[in-house]
Amino acid sequence: MKKICFLLFALPVAALAQQTQNYTADSVFIKTISDNIMVSRAAYNNLFYLTKKIGGRLAGSPQMVQAENWGYSIMDQSGADKVSMQECMVPHWVRGGKDKATVSFTAGKGKIVNMPLNVLALGNSEGSGPKGVTAPVIRVNSFDELEKRKSEIKGKIVFYNVPFEETFIKTFQSYGKNVMYRGAGASRAAKYGAVAVMVRSMTHAMDNNPHTGAMNYADSLPKIPAVAVGLRDVEKLDSLLDNNTNITAQIFTYGKMLPDTIGHNIIGELTGTEYPNEIITVGGHLDSWDVNEGAHDDGAGIIQTIEVLRVFAALGFKPKHTIRFVLFANEENGTRGGKQYAAVAKEKNEKHIFALESDEGGFTPRGFGFDVNTAVWSKLNSWKPLFTPYGGDGFTQGGGGADIGYLKEAFKTPMAGLQPDSQRYFDVHHAASDVFESVNIRELKLGAVNMAALLYLVDKYGL
Amino acid sequence: MKKICFLLFALPVAALAQQTQNYTADSVFIKTISDNIMVSRAAYNNLFYLTKKIGGRLAGSPQMVQAENWGYSIMDQSGADKVSMQECMVPHWVRGGKDKATVSFTAGKGKIVNMPLNVLALGNSEGSGPKGVTAPVIRVNSFDELEKRKSEIKGKIVFYNVPFEETFIKTFQSYGKNVMYRGAGASRAAKYGAVAVMVRSMTHAMDNNPHTGAMNYADSLPKIPAVAVGLRDVEKLDSLLDNNTNITAQIFTYGKMLPDTIGHNIIGELTGTEYPNEIITVGGHLDSWDVNEGAHDDGAGIIQTIEVLRVFAALGFKPKHTIRFVLFANEENGTRGGKQYAAVAKEKNEKHIFALESDEGGFTPRGFGFDVNTAVWSKLNSWKPLFTPYGGDGFTQGGGGADIGYLKEAFKTPMAGLQPDSQRYFDVHHAASDVFESVNIRELKLGAVNMAALLYLVDKYGL
Repeated sequence: MKKICFLLFALPVAALAQQTQNYTADSVFIKTISDNIMVSRAAYNNLFYLTKKIGGRLAGSPQMVQAENWGYSIMDQSGADKVSMQECMVPHWVRGGKDKATVSFTAGKGKIVNMPLNVLALGNSEGSGPKGVTAPVIRVNSFDELEKRKSEIKGKIVFYNVPFEETFIKTFQSYGKNVMYRGAGASRAAKYGAVAVMVRSMTHAMDNNPHTGAMNYADSLPKIPAVAVGLRDVEKLDSLLDNNTNITAQIFTYGKMLPDTIGHNIIGELTGTEYPNEIITVGGHLDSWDVNEGAHDDGAGIIQTIEVLRVFAALGFKPKHTIRFVLFANEENGTRGGKQYAAVAKEKNEKHIFALESDEGGFTPRGFGFDVNTAVWSKLNSWKPLFTPYGGDGFTQGGGGADIGYLKEAFKTPMAGLQPDSQRYFDVHHAASDVFESVNIRELKLGAVNMAALLYLVDKYGL
Repeated sequence: MKKICFLLFALPVAALAQQTQNYTADSVFIKTISDNIMVSRAAYNNLFYLTKKIGGRLAGSPQMVQAENWGYSIMDQSGADKVSMQECMVPHWVRGGKDKATVSFTAGKGKIVNMPLNVLALGNSEGSGPKGVTAPVIRVNSFDELEKRKSEIKGKIVFYNVPFEETFIKTFQSYGKNVMYRGAGASRAAKYGAVAVMVRSMTHAMDNNPHTGAMNYADSLPKIPAVAVGLRDVEKLDSLLDNNTNITAQIFTYGKMLPDTIGHNIIGELTGTEYPNEIITVGGHLDSWDVNEGAHDDGAGIIQTIEVLRVFAALGFKPKHTIRFVLFANEENGTRGGKQYAAVAKEKNEKHIFALESDEGGFTPRGFGFDVNTAVWSKLNSWKPLFTPYGGDGFTQGGGGADIGYLKEAFKTPMAGLQPDSQRYFDVHHAASDVFESVNIRELKLGAVNMAALLYLVDKYGL
């Protein structure tokens, strides 16, 4: 009995002692990483270049090519052992002109009033053409309502007015709940004969910027125009519809899907010293929408990925496993970069042991969302205190990223996504306001510090 | 032996079971608080009024009086059992004019170049008068350097160029380390015959806004002019000084300390149902600097204090102890409100069981800093999981607030300060950029949610 007791207690204590010792060294190294990143001007300069000198960089655009070349060069300068461009075909959608919408209604004494709305065509949508689409507006507050009122839809412009759920603390939950209206709203309405759709922007913002984003048509249905409307105009329109059943809208959009074109994933590498064939991937996506500078989405993830590479190289850190720093192509309207990366990896029968993505904005990190098994989850949790000084110790289950998701599908690779504070993300997401000035560089850098710490620990201890 | 074992294990389990049960009810109530606050427009409207309709509200200014009247009225409307104005004398410093500074130096071929600097006189400082002060500039990077070079100071303008420490993750540490140059720099330099001082702004910001803030003169020394310089101009001046030893500055400021005037703490109350004479205080400070709208400093703390009152009243929550919601006067350049509140409490022999302040900006909450004894600290930590869904579970030791600090002195009252994310605070602190638009209303509201949760728990369980 005594002996069993001894063993029961001695083992964890010994393990703890060893762990504590390791953690001290790790904590010192992570502080070195942090000090380097917090003092360096690289993140500022790189984000400035990507957003202000290149700007919006939708797949297929000239800016996509500029961004690819810049990404190649900056990873080379940041100390990658090698850099390569991995070709993939990407969709090539163009906005084609200035999106416009106006609502018209009869005010007192039969006077017709025209009210312009602040709108943006949704990505991948087909334009109305120069004649525009003019039709009565019907407002629905859910797909359920659309179904119930399907007999009223024909010949109308459907206005999806589904507000973000304000009581959700994590704003991605609100987005997750509502994004189907942006993605599938056009075809769901076209099924019943709608001629266009207007979608309430996916945002909590108090301003009037419309928020674009990807939509997809069902092949079998008419490809009707689709726009997002700014929230202040949504409020006006909503109030008009409360008091007036006879409202007409006129929409002009010019979107067009051109033939696929060539894009690239840009891949930097630090080659593993012990297990060069075991791969850890970290990345963000290089593309952005056309209407802004793609600063948070996903300039932040790109700059953080490069910053992790830069700091590892600057500190002379040689990982045991190969770390690939990937600037993924075309996340926004196709995720072709992520698909291609996983497909090539599968073809080459690579071994992918971990993947990390940053694509939730350059805000102060709160932690990571992990998609891992129970054993890995416990191990990760033993590292949490190492992240506390840098704010990234909020570990949650569930997470990853749109681009690395395909690796998970192919290899069951454990994966994680950086989780920054989400309150401001949907203020700027896919809107004209996602610009350099909306990023606080210290917040962005802190994300890179936590990412570097996680990659260092995964490389050192495995998963 | 068996019996002892049973007792040893049974007690904590029973306690845990009870605790778990309570926590479920608490968790439900806190969610109700959160839902109410996150959906309400009150915080937005109140902050808008305070910042855009009243604006900067330095002690002694007409806006101070407007803000006091507004605060009284809004607490009454928000459901306080009673509201009162507690008189206190406040300092009355006026800026008196537009602060200006220019540096002059000789460029190539003997040409004199004049470069204007973006400056603000420090609060409480005496002006140069219309003739200005003109003198050679001497740069020092620490008080140590000032002491070493004391023989060179006479007749000069001392430029304190001490950068914020970028490696500190919590920015208040950087501020804490450097603020002495703003507070005491003038008199330290005057001691050796300096005629004015220029202080590098207390900020990490990438813009050129100067950051004002309180300074104090030593009575025995000449009261020389003192200005803060914007960081981009600091960089230019620094680089000039690296290459040119002969640089002169001319400073014009107009500050003046007028006789003390009457101000007020505005005190709303929810009277305790069981222990009306045991008081919990929550507050922020109503005054701000004159050069901005005082949105984060401390409009945020004011709006959160009112929001906690509003949500408690709206939900019909009747605290057992009396909760006082205090909008403190004159934190910025005198803390006379905090002093008066504690002095009156002492005079009346009140019992103060807890105090909470919010004065670190309206950013996403990370937790609270507590100044409490060990037993209270353990108790508080058992509540942490209740804060996790709202982001406020980062509890640290050490904290409180400038205003409630006097209660601590008088009664040893346990105290706490809300700790929001600090990365952006010193971007706007005491600068023209601290305006309504710099506040994200959801971040601000989340602070109020966590504050309300803490006050609810302290009231329910005691400390």
